[in-house]
Amino acid sequence: MGKGAQTREAILVRSLSLASHLGLEGVTIGRLAEELDLSKSGLFAHFRSKEELQLQTLQRAADEFVEAVVKPALAVPRGERRVRALFEGWLRWPEVVPQPGGCIFVAAAVELDDRPGPARELLVRLQRDWLDVIATTVRAACSMGEFRRDVDPEQFAYEVYGIMLVCHHATRLLRDPKATERAEKAFTRLVGAARARR
Amino acid sequence: MGKGAQTREAILVRSLSLASHLGLEGVTIGRLAEELDLSKSGLFAHFRSKEELQLQTLQRAADEFVEAVVKPALAVPRGERRVRALFEGWLRWPEVVPQPGGCIFVAAAVELDDRPGPARELLVRLQRDWLDVIATTVRAACSMGEFRRDVDPEQFAYEVYGIMLVCHHATRLLRDPKATERAEKAFTRLVGAARARR
Repeated sequence: MGKGAQTREAILVRSLSLASHLGLEGVTIGRLAEELDLSKSGLFAHFRSKEELQLQTLQRAADEFVEAVVKPALAVPRGERRVRALFEGWLRWPEVVPQPGGCIFVAAAVELDDRPGPARELLVRLQRDWLDVIATTVRAACSMGEFRRDVDPEQFAYEVYGIMLVCHHATRLLRDPKATERAEKAFTRLVGAARARR
Repeated sequence: MGKGAQTREAILVRSLSLASHLGLEGVTIGRLAEELDLSKSGLFAHFRSKEELQLQTLQRAADEFVEAVVKPALAVPRGERRVRALFEGWLRWPEVVPQPGGCIFVAAAVELDDRPGPARELLVRLQRDWLDVIATTVRAACSMGEFRRDVDPEQFAYEVYGIMLVCHHATRLLRDPKATERAEKAFTRLVGAARARR
C-alpha cells in the first residue's frame, strides 16, 4: 500500500469503530481528523463529504462481513451444512471482527430507517443482499431434498434474521449469558422444522 | 389536570416523539424548550436534568405500552389465546400509539447498550419485564396443558422477541410489504411447535 492508501485505511478503521459506538451520525470529518491527528483538509482529500465517509464506512463493514462470514460459508458444501455455516459465522463475527459498540448494521438500521438518502439506500441494499444469501442457500437445500420442497426460503431468512437480532439484543443490552445458547436452540428448531422427513 | 400537570404532559408527549425520531440522546431540555415555546427554566421546573427527562420519557413509553398491549391481553382468557393476544397487541401497537420514528425501545436498546447509567438500567428492567410477561403467559399455557410441559417459557419469549425485532426491521428499514404477514407465520409456527399433541 502507498501512503495515501494507508491513510485511507487508517481513517476507515477508526471510522468503523466510531460508527459502532456512536452510530453513523457520530462519524464526522472533524471528529476523525481530531482522533487521527490529521488536518480536516487532509481528510477531505480522501472523503469529499460526511456522506461519502458514511457510505464508505458502511461498505467497508459489509466487505469485512463478506470476508469473515459469507466466503467461509460458501466453501462449505451446499445444503443444510452451508445454511448452518452462515448462521454460525454470524454468531462468531464479533470475535473475528471486534465491534466494541455492537453491530454497525443493527445500529445503522435504527438510525437510518427514517432518514432517506444514499446511506439508507446502501444499507437497504446490503441487508437485502445478506437476506438473499441466506434464502439462496436455503433454496439449494430444498432442491437437494435436505429441506422440504414447500419451505419458503424468504420466510426462513426472515426468521433467521430475527434470531440474529434478538441474540444481539440479549447479548448487548441484557447481558444475558444464555443469549448465544438460546440463539442456537432457536436455529436448530427452525432447521428441524424445515428438514425433509426421511 | 392542573396547569402544571398539563405542561408536564405536553413535554412528555413531545419528548416521546423526539426520542422516536432521534433517539433518547436527541431529547434535550434546550430542544424541547424551543419546540414547545417554553423557557429552559420552565422545563427545568418539571425535569431537573436531561437524565431525569430521559428516564421519564422511557417510563412514559412503557406505561403507554402496558395500557395498549399488556392490559388488554390480560383481559383475554389464559393460555394460548393470551399468548396470541400479547403478540397481536404488539403488532397493532404502532397503530394504537403512533411512533412515527419507530419503536422507542428498539432505538434505545441500540443507543444505550454501551452507555452505563440509570437510563440503561431502566431500559433493561422494562425489557426484562416485557419478556417476563410473555414467559409467564407461556408458563400458564403449559400448566393448563395447552402447551407441552417441556416448553421452555424463557426460550419461547426470546424467540417471540426475535420475531418482533425482525418485523420492526423489515417494516421500518426494508419497507417489506410482507413484514407483518411473515411475523404472523413465524409466530404461528412457534405456537404450533409448543402445542401439546391431542
